[in-house]
Amino acid sequence: MIDFKIKDSNLEKEIIENKNLIEQAHDSLWNKKGIGNEMLGWLDFPDNFNLNEVNEINEKVKKIKNLGIDTLLVIGIGGSYLGSKAAIDFLKGSLNIDEKIYFAGINVSDSYIKQLENKLKNKNWAICVISKSGTTLEPAISFRYFKNLLLKKVGETKLKDLIVVVTDKEKGILKNLADIKGYQTFSIPDDIGGRFSVLTAVGLFPMSFAGIDILKFLEGTKKARKEFSNNDIKNNLAYKYALGRFLLFSKRKKVLEIFTTYDPDFMMLSEWLKQLFAESEGKNNKGIFPTSVTYSRDLHSLGQFIQDGNKVFFETTLFLLEDKKVFLNNDVENLDKLNYLNKKSFAEINRVILNSVIESHANNAKIPNFLIFINERNEETLGYLLFFFFISVSISGYLLRINPFDQPGVEIYKKNMFTSLGKIS
Amino acid sequence: MIDFKIKDSNLEKEIIENKNLIEQAHDSLWNKKGIGNEMLGWLDFPDNFNLNEVNEINEKVKKIKNLGIDTLLVIGIGGSYLGSKAAIDFLKGSLNIDEKIYFAGINVSDSYIKQLENKLKNKNWAICVISKSGTTLEPAISFRYFKNLLLKKVGETKLKDLIVVVTDKEKGILKNLADIKGYQTFSIPDDIGGRFSVLTAVGLFPMSFAGIDILKFLEGTKKARKEFSNNDIKNNLAYKYALGRFLLFSKRKKVLEIFTTYDPDFMMLSEWLKQLFAESEGKNNKGIFPTSVTYSRDLHSLGQFIQDGNKVFFETTLFLLEDKKVFLNNDVENLDKLNYLNKKSFAEINRVILNSVIESHANNAKIPNFLIFINERNEETLGYLLFFFFISVSISGYLLRINPFDQPGVEIYKKNMFTSLGKIS
Repeated sequence: MIDFKIKDSNLEKEIIENKNLIEQAHDSLWNKKGIGNEMLGWLDFPDNFNLNEVNEINEKVKKIKNLGIDTLLVIGIGGSYLGSKAAIDFLKGSLNIDEKIYFAGINVSDSYIKQLENKLKNKNWAICVISKSGTTLEPAISFRYFKNLLLKKVGETKLKDLIVVVTDKEKGILKNLADIKGYQTFSIPDDIGGRFSVLTAVGLFPMSFAGIDILKFLEGTKKARKEFSNNDIKNNLAYKYALGRFLLFSKRKKVLEIFTTYDPDFMMLSEWLKQLFAESEGKNNKGIFPTSVTYSRDLHSLGQFIQDGNKVFFETTLFLLEDKKVFLNNDVENLDKLNYLNKKSFAEINRVILNSVIESHANNAKIPNFLIFINERNEETLGYLLFFFFISVSISGYLLRINPFDQPGVEIYKKNMFTSLGKIS
Repeated sequence: MIDFKIKDSNLEKEIIENKNLIEQAHDSLWNKKGIGNEMLGWLDFPDNFNLNEVNEINEKVKKIKNLGIDTLLVIGIGGSYLGSKAAIDFLKGSLNIDEKIYFAGINVSDSYIKQLENKLKNKNWAICVISKSGTTLEPAISFRYFKNLLLKKVGETKLKDLIVVVTDKEKGILKNLADIKGYQTFSIPDDIGGRFSVLTAVGLFPMSFAGIDILKFLEGTKKARKEFSNNDIKNNLAYKYALGRFLLFSKRKKVLEIFTTYDPDFMMLSEWLKQLFAESEGKNNKGIFPTSVTYSRDLHSLGQFIQDGNKVFFETTLFLLEDKKVFLNNDVENLDKLNYLNKKSFAEINRVILNSVIESHANNAKIPNFLIFINERNEETLGYLLFFFFISVSISGYLLRINPFDQPGVEIYKKNMFTSLGKIS
């Protein structure tokens, strides 16, 4: 489903030479002996998820749509936003979808709220609110605001069927509120952290609303789980990638990883990757800082720096071997002198740009580059790809000797904030 | 129009101690003695721009709108995209504007083109194509594609009035094409590079179409030009910022600058900043790599790394002291336990989040932070702010002893690409 290549004169060799480093990490992960092992619910999820719940998600989506709803407002932050957003943009298009699915709870901007309100004015919309505890401030205040708006639009009786809550299975403010009000709930398992939660109702409900086959998506994760549990690094692409990036960091002082894509539909996938790696690795003053570029756009901005600037980084490129859909035609006048591209598709030209960039970056500028070619844009491949990164980041974290599954640093601003706001706990 | 503060225990002092470093850079810039001085057209532009051209831009916008056009497709890449996009999102809202102004030429994705085509189907649209030479591939092929689409929709006669060309004043493929076809043209001065071109018709035409008062915008740049030409660093915020970041890079090995914003309307401003700094500084294996985060979203992803991870970076925060527009109301049931925020606006809460983050990052984690407070969201302030960064990046470049005004690295992939495509030159 994906091809993986390393563009670097020596890294492949170094990986094989250092393959013993993988052994302990492999053992920690699969035998659940490592630090953070209480949060490994995602690891077996592809093999033991609850099929009934998947069906219930699809059923609820159908019910809501049968009520004439065409637009879903998803309220959530972090993993409760990035997973489904990345999946929807990747599978359904980043421009298409913005008429059907909006997101709130990701900022506290008066301007954004007002604009969103304006967008929703003439739509028939429902809410999916996602929060494990219900106390995270940004989604909580957005939920209060938009629930009130929807209440005014449809009234109390109808409102009940138009709110879906994804939260803790038994406790917390949001679970309590949902039970009192009679909103349908889906649960977030205790042993799956936010950045791994795309596998659960957190990701699946918005994806299903967007018309994504969520069962196929889960099948893709199952396939990846099987392949990337192989302890032989030669046959495990996720391990190669994890060890390769660790060696670039520890031996060559590459402190920055650039996730490079060639299609705006991939931009949110890069954001998802940034969360996954930053939140997993960025602790104890360690970690590779993740950033992203989207080409061609950024070839004409950050491209200058990547080609000629301070080489503190490596690149990880994701490229889709896309269907050819759009072609350039002949032009009799040929005033733009582009007839030499007659009958070429944009996808083919994009491929030429990719190869030219790799030549310029890897060969001319000696920037190490991991290349991940994605063979098809479909649910199964996406599930497979995301799970590839789950395994990679876990192994990477163990190589760095940190807990890849916690996020203590996220709590600090929250604590300061609640103190300032005078929250009564 | 802006307030500037440095959150760091010692940097302010270090700046004053090293202020002699600024002298030569100041002289190079304002007396036009430095490397790259042939590209300093932007420096005096605020004082000597052509008022007639500004009026012509506004006139042409009016004419097009009088033909019933409600949507503009802007085709351009790099500076021919980022400046106007950043300005429009900042002033008109990032969600609002996507129904009126679309961009192409920034990627070569079949998927994007198809989605865009779909969006334009039921709109009355015109094209503004921006390219100095007309040979940059991405905008050139997009222009051929969409021109053909518009031709099919409106016919040859009407097409003439619906295409605006911003290009070289006398030569090049695009200028030639426009003259033959009778499209109205606006010119890009020879001595203003792409990343400074937001001042010219490149930025001004799309901005005017979006309803922005472009004369007020230019007045803001004029005000900034005056203030930031002061050679006394104590009274020159742009110099303080430029020298501060140079010291963090050269003395404290901070290789990464994070542009931090708190509103999605600022996301494209961050992209514009990334181009400005990356393309200006990233050469001769030097430069501070620019990246960006948008809060609260990224507090729940990259926030973990920033708080606890490898401290190779500093932050530059842009924060708007926004009008209060959206308020939280009392809820009788108070099931979400948020009544303690009754009558608070989202803007106020965002301000509390800002202060909590600064406390967590600057005080707890000792991350140097430049704070730029923007007092108002209007044209003049935006012009002022962008020119602040023009001066900062020029001085920064001279401190690094590189040419801040060229971009030789961007040419390399282009050369490889044209060879592969078999372009007949």
